[in-house]
Amino acid sequence: APEMTTLKGRPLDRTAVDSLLRRRFFYAPTADIYGGVAGFFDFGPPGCSLQANIIETWRRHFVLEEDMLEVDSPMITPYAVLKSSGHVERFCDFVAKDSVNGDILRADHVVEEILEARLRGDKEARGETVEVAGNAKKKKKKKLKGETATEGLKLDDAVVQEYSEILAKIDNYDGTGLSELISKHDIRNPSSGNKFSLPVYTQNLMFAVSIGAGKLPAYLRPETAQGQFLNFSKLLEFNQQSMPLASASIGKSGRNEIAPRAGLLHYVDPEGGKKHHRFHEVADVKINLLDRHVQLAGKTNAIPITLGEAVQNGAVDNETIGYFIARIQLFLTKLGLDPNKIRFREHMENEMGKLLYFCVDAELLTSYGWIEAVGCADRSAYDLSCHTKATGVPLVVRESRKEPLVVTEFVAETHKAKFGPRFKKDRKAVQSVVDQLTQDVKEKLSLELKENGKITIDVPEVGDGKVELTSELIKIEQQTRTEYTREFIPNVIEPSFGIGRILYSLCEQVFWTREGSEERAVLSFPPAIAPTKVLLVPLSANPDFKPLVANLTKELRRQGLSTRVDDSSASIGKRYSRNDELGTPLGITVDFQSLKDETITLRDRDTTAQVRAGQDEIIEAIVRLVKGTETWSQISARLPKFEGQELE
Amino acid sequence: APEMTTLKGRPLDRTAVDSLLRRRFFYAPTADIYGGVAGFFDFGPPGCSLQANIIETWRRHFVLEEDMLEVDSPMITPYAVLKSSGHVERFCDFVAKDSVNGDILRADHVVEEILEARLRGDKEARGETVEVAGNAKKKKKKKLKGETATEGLKLDDAVVQEYSEILAKIDNYDGTGLSELISKHDIRNPSSGNKFSLPVYTQNLMFAVSIGAGKLPAYLRPETAQGQFLNFSKLLEFNQQSMPLASASIGKSGRNEIAPRAGLLHYVDPEGGKKHHRFHEVADVKINLLDRHVQLAGKTNAIPITLGEAVQNGAVDNETIGYFIARIQLFLTKLGLDPNKIRFREHMENEMGKLLYFCVDAELLTSYGWIEAVGCADRSAYDLSCHTKATGVPLVVRESRKEPLVVTEFVAETHKAKFGPRFKKDRKAVQSVVDQLTQDVKEKLSLELKENGKITIDVPEVGDGKVELTSELIKIEQQTRTEYTREFIPNVIEPSFGIGRILYSLCEQVFWTREGSEERAVLSFPPAIAPTKVLLVPLSANPDFKPLVANLTKELRRQGLSTRVDDSSASIGKRYSRNDELGTPLGITVDFQSLKDETITLRDRDTTAQVRAGQDEIIEAIVRLVKGTETWSQISARLPKFEGQELE
Repeated sequence: APEMTTLKGRPLDRTAVDSLLRRRFFYAPTADIYGGVAGFFDFGPPGCSLQANIIETWRRHFVLEEDMLEVDSPMITPYAVLKSSGHVERFCDFVAKDSVNGDILRADHVVEEILEARLRGDKEARGETVEVAGNAKKKKKKKLKGETATEGLKLDDAVVQEYSEILAKIDNYDGTGLSELISKHDIRNPSSGNKFSLPVYTQNLMFAVSIGAGKLPAYLRPETAQGQFLNFSKLLEFNQQSMPLASASIGKSGRNEIAPRAGLLHYVDPEGGKKHHRFHEVADVKINLLDRHVQLAGKTNAIPITLGEAVQNGAVDNETIGYFIARIQLFLTKLGLDPNKIRFREHMENEMGKLLYFCVDAELLTSYGWIEAVGCADRSAYDLSCHTKATGVPLVVRESRKEPLVVTEFVAETHKAKFGPRFKKDRKAVQSVVDQLTQDVKEKLSLELKENGKITIDVPEVGDGKVELTSELIKIEQQTRTEYTREFIPNVIEPSFGIGRILYSLCEQVFWTREGSEERAVLSFPPAIAPTKVLLVPLSANPDFKPLVANLTKELRRQGLSTRVDDSSASIGKRYSRNDELGTPLGITVDFQSLKDETITLRDRDTTAQVRAGQDEIIEAIVRLVKGTETWSQISARLPKFEGQELE
Repeated sequence: APEMTTLKGRPLDRTAVDSLLRRRFFYAPTADIYGGVAGFFDFGPPGCSLQANIIETWRRHFVLEEDMLEVDSPMITPYAVLKSSGHVERFCDFVAKDSVNGDILRADHVVEEILEARLRGDKEARGETVEVAGNAKKKKKKKLKGETATEGLKLDDAVVQEYSEILAKIDNYDGTGLSELISKHDIRNPSSGNKFSLPVYTQNLMFAVSIGAGKLPAYLRPETAQGQFLNFSKLLEFNQQSMPLASASIGKSGRNEIAPRAGLLHYVDPEGGKKHHRFHEVADVKINLLDRHVQLAGKTNAIPITLGEAVQNGAVDNETIGYFIARIQLFLTKLGLDPNKIRFREHMENEMGKLLYFCVDAELLTSYGWIEAVGCADRSAYDLSCHTKATGVPLVVRESRKEPLVVTEFVAETHKAKFGPRFKKDRKAVQSVVDQLTQDVKEKLSLELKENGKITIDVPEVGDGKVELTSELIKIEQQTRTEYTREFIPNVIEPSFGIGRILYSLCEQVFWTREGSEERAVLSFPPAIAPTKVLLVPLSANPDFKPLVANLTKELRRQGLSTRVDDSSASIGKRYSRNDELGTPLGITVDFQSLKDETITLRDRDTTAQVRAGQDEIIEAIVRLVKGTETWSQISARLPKFEGQELE
C-alpha cells in the first residue's frame, strides 16, 4: 500500500492522530479503566456527534433521495435464519493457532503482516527511504518479535516479486493456499516467534447467544440485511405491492467486533439486464477501480474510470450496481474523504464464495493501508430463495403481465382424499417429493404411469426409500394454461456501510498540522460533518460578555447549529487551537467592541483568517457555510477583514 | 388496574389496536416467517419513523436543553465490569419451574396473573360488569388452562381483600415471600395446570456472550449507564474538569429482550441536599404519585401532587430527582400520552435492594395494565465507588475550596526502601492493609508503636495472617495539613427510558375509532411525533396531477416534512382512512380546481374538516401545525372552509 499522507501531503504520523483522537475523546478503548477490550471502542461526545452527522448525511443521501423503507430489527437473530442464509456454515475466517501458546490469529492477516515487514526490511537494506513517520514505524516494528531477521535484511529480487504478487491477491487464498504460504515462507506468530499448527482452520465470525433460558440458539446479527430480507413481503405490501422497492437499516452488527453499520437493499427485476432509470445521472462519475483481473495478475494499481465506461466495458456488471457505486463515491467525497484515497476493489472468486455473490468494496487509504469501508454486492436472488426454501413462504413479486403467457407443461396431481389414509404421517414427505419433480422426470413418469398403472419414486425418509404410487393416487399429464400474472424473485443490490471504519478513515484523511508548528494539529471536517459548528470565545471571563454569548448560543441553536463555549482563562489563540483539534470549522469572538456596536468576529479554521460584522450577518454567513451554499473565500471577499485580537 | 380506554373514553379492544399496528407494519414479530421469537419485534417503516421522532424529541428535550455529553459504547460489556457493578450477582428475577414440563416463568408475573383472574371471576359471579372489550377478554381467558375454576367463582370477602393487598405490593416480595404465596394460594402454571417446583430461584436477566474465540466472558449490556460510568473521568476532562456534568446514551440494551433505551446520568454534589438550580421552573408541574407507603398498605391509588409539594413533604427525596421527574412528565405529555394515564410509582424496599438505590418509575396505562416505561433513580455514589474499588482508578471530582480546610489526623507512613526487601511479593498486600487503617485504629497503633517499638496487624493473605511492623518500617503520628481542594464522588440521578414501551403505550393511548363506524380506526399522534406528516392525494390517476404532486413533495421535503403519496385508484375517503390508521395528521388533495388556480385543500385527521387555499399558504400552515405554533382550530378559523370532494 502507498504510504499515508496528511491532508497537506506530508507523511502522516499515526501516533499523532491517534493520540489526538483519544485525548479529545473522539473515542476511547471500551472499559478502559478495566484494561480495555481489544477491538472495542466507545465514542465520546465529538465521536458521537461525528457519527450522528455521518449517519444523517447517509440517510439524506440514500434513504430520502431514493424513498427507501426503513426497518429496525433486534440485534439477536435466531439460529434457523442464519442457518438458511448460509452464515452458520460459511461466514468464517481462516485462523492459525500458535503451536506453543495457543494464540489464534487470522491466517491472511498474519501472512500479510510478515511479508510486508520483510519487504520493508528489504527496502531498508537497499537504502530506500521507508516513508513512515517515526513513532508509527517504531510501533510496527515493536510488534514483530521473533522477526528481528527482517530488519534491514535484503531479499532476492525474485522473492520480492513473489511476495508482492502474494500480497496483491492475498484475499483470494483458500485454507489450503494459506496453509501452504505459512509453511513455505516460514510465517510465525509475530508476538511469540512460534510456528503455527497447520493446516489453518475455519472459525465462525459470529457471536453466539441464546434466547430464553438457553433454549433457543441464536447469534448477534452479522449484518443488517437479514432483518430486511425476512420482512420482504411486508415491505412489498407496505409499498402497495409495487416495485421498485428498496429498504434500509441502520444499527450495530457483530462480526468479531460490534460495529455500527448502515445497509440498503435495492430490489431489482432480474430480467432486462438490471438497468437503472437514473444511471444517466451518474454515468460521468469517476472512480478508481481495481478489478479482479489486475489483482489476480499480482498487481494493485487501480485505474480511474467513469461508471459509464466501466459498465460499457463490463468491468462493472450492470447499471444498477454501477449506479450505487457512483452514489457511494459521491457520498464518501461529500463526507470529506479524498477521491485519491478512495478505490473500489472487485472481489476475487474465492472471496465471493463466502456468501455467493458479486461484490465490489470501497476501500479507504489509511496508515493501516487500504481498508474496506463499504461493500456493494449483487446478492442475486440468493437470500430470498434460501428463506423461501426453508420456510415455504414465497418471497416473490407478482406482476400483471402486459401480454398473457401461455404455458404447456406436465402437471402431477395427487388424490388428496386417498393420499392421507394411504401414507398417514408420511404423506407430507411423499407430497413434497412429488411437488419437486422436474418437467423431464414428470414426462418420463407420465408414460410409465400410463403403461404400468403405477410408478415408483424415491422418498428417502419413508420405509426403504421407495414409494409406489398407483393411478388411483396420482395423475400426471400435460396441461396448457394461460398466465396473466408474472411471479419472480427479485435480485438484490446491497450497499453496506461500516460507519466506524468510515469515521476513523475520515479522521486520518482530514488530519494535518500547521506549517512550522507540528504540535498544532487540525481536523478539517467539512462544516456539515464537523461535530461542533461554532466555537464561542469571549475575550475574557468578564461577566459583561455573558449575556451576549448566551444570546448567540440561543440564536445559533435555533438555527440547528451546535455550539460550544470556551470561557476558560487560556489565550484566544490557545482556545482556537484546542478547537481546531476538534475540527470546529468556525469561531466567534466576543470582545469589548462587541459590547459597543454588537459586531462580532468570525474565524475560519482552515485559513485562521477572520472577518468582522454585525451579529445577524455573521449568523447568516454561518448558516450558508454549513449548508454549503457559500464558501469561506466568498464570505471573506464580501465581509470586512479583521486582523485584531488573535495572538497565537 | 383500571380498564384501558381509547382516546375518546370507550373501552379499548386490544386485538383491534394490535391488528392495526401489525397490518400497517408499525411492527411485526422478529423472523415472523420462521415462526417468530417470543418477545422480539421488528419495526417497519412507520414504527421506525415513530421511534426516530420519539428519540429526536427526547434528544431535544433532555440532551440539548441540559447540554449533556453523549457517549456511545458497544453493546458487549466485559464480565469484570458487570461483576463490579453488581449485575452478575443481583440483576436477577425470581422464576418458578413447572414441576412436570419444566416451563420457566417469572414468579411475580404468574402470581399476579392468577390472582387477577380469580378476582375477575369473582366479579363476574357477583354480577359486576367486567369492563374489557370482547376479544381481549376472550384472549386472556384462553391462556388460563387448568384455571377454569376461576370463571364465575365467587370468593369470600376476606379473600378478595387479601388478593387485592398482595397485588398492590407484588413488587415487594422476595424469593421466600413468592414461594409462600405460590404454595398458600395454590398458584399453578396457567398454560399446563401443573404445580411449580418450590422454592422459586433466581435467574440472571442478562445475555451471556464471549469475546475473541471464547476467551473473555461478557454480557450484552443490561443498561446504557455502565458505559457512561466507566468514561466518567474522560467526560469530566472533556468538560474542562467542571461540574455540573451530565451524560447521555441512546442504544439497545439487553435484559430478557433487546430493547431500545435512552439514558441520562446527571452528576450531583452529594453535599447541600442535592438542590437543583432550575427546580423553580418545574415546581408547579403536577404528577400522579403512588408512594411506597400507600403500596405497602395494600392500596394502589395514586395522588395528584405538584413536585414542589412532593419535595417539600418528603414524598420525593430531593430537588434534583424532583426536577427530572417533572421533566419526564413534560416529555411524556409532549409525545401525546394522556396525563391521566401516567403515574409515578415509588419503588419499595425489596425492589431497590436489587441494585441499591432510590427509584421512582413512570408507568403508563395500557390494556396490559400499568407498565413501567421510565425509571428515575438516585443511584447515589454506588456505581462510581464500585468501579473505583475494582480498578483502583479514582472516579472523583476535585474542586478548589473557597475556604481552605485544616485537617488534623493520624497518618501512617511506611518506609518504602525497606518495605520492599522485607516483604517482597507480599508488600502490596501489607501496604494495602496499612492504607485502610481507620483513624481510631491508627491512634491506638501509634501509642503501641511508641511503647513497644513494633505493632502487629492482620493481613489474611500473608503467612499466618499476622504481620509485625517495627518502627524502622512504619511511622504513625498525628499531622496537621491544609487542604485547598475538595475531592468527592458525585451522586448520580439517572432517568432511563424504555423507548419501545413508550412507543407501544403511546399507540394504545392515541387509538380511537370514528363514532358509528368501528372499523375506521385513527391514531391521533401529535403532528411532531407522527411517522408521516402529510399525505398527498391526487383526485385520480390523471397524469396532469403528477407535476403538481411532485412539486409539493419537493417543497414539503425542503421544509423537512415527511410525505407519502397515495395515487392508488381507491376513493379519496378510503385513502384518507388508510392514512388515519398510520396517524398521518394532515392530507392535501390535488383536484381539477388545483390545476386552474393552484389552490389545494388541507384536511385535519382528527376532525376530518378541510380548508382550501393557495399552495404557499397551505405549506406555511402545515409548518406551523407541525412546529406547534398554531392549532387546527386557529387554521380553520383563518382559512376558507372546504366541503367538496371527500366522500366517505
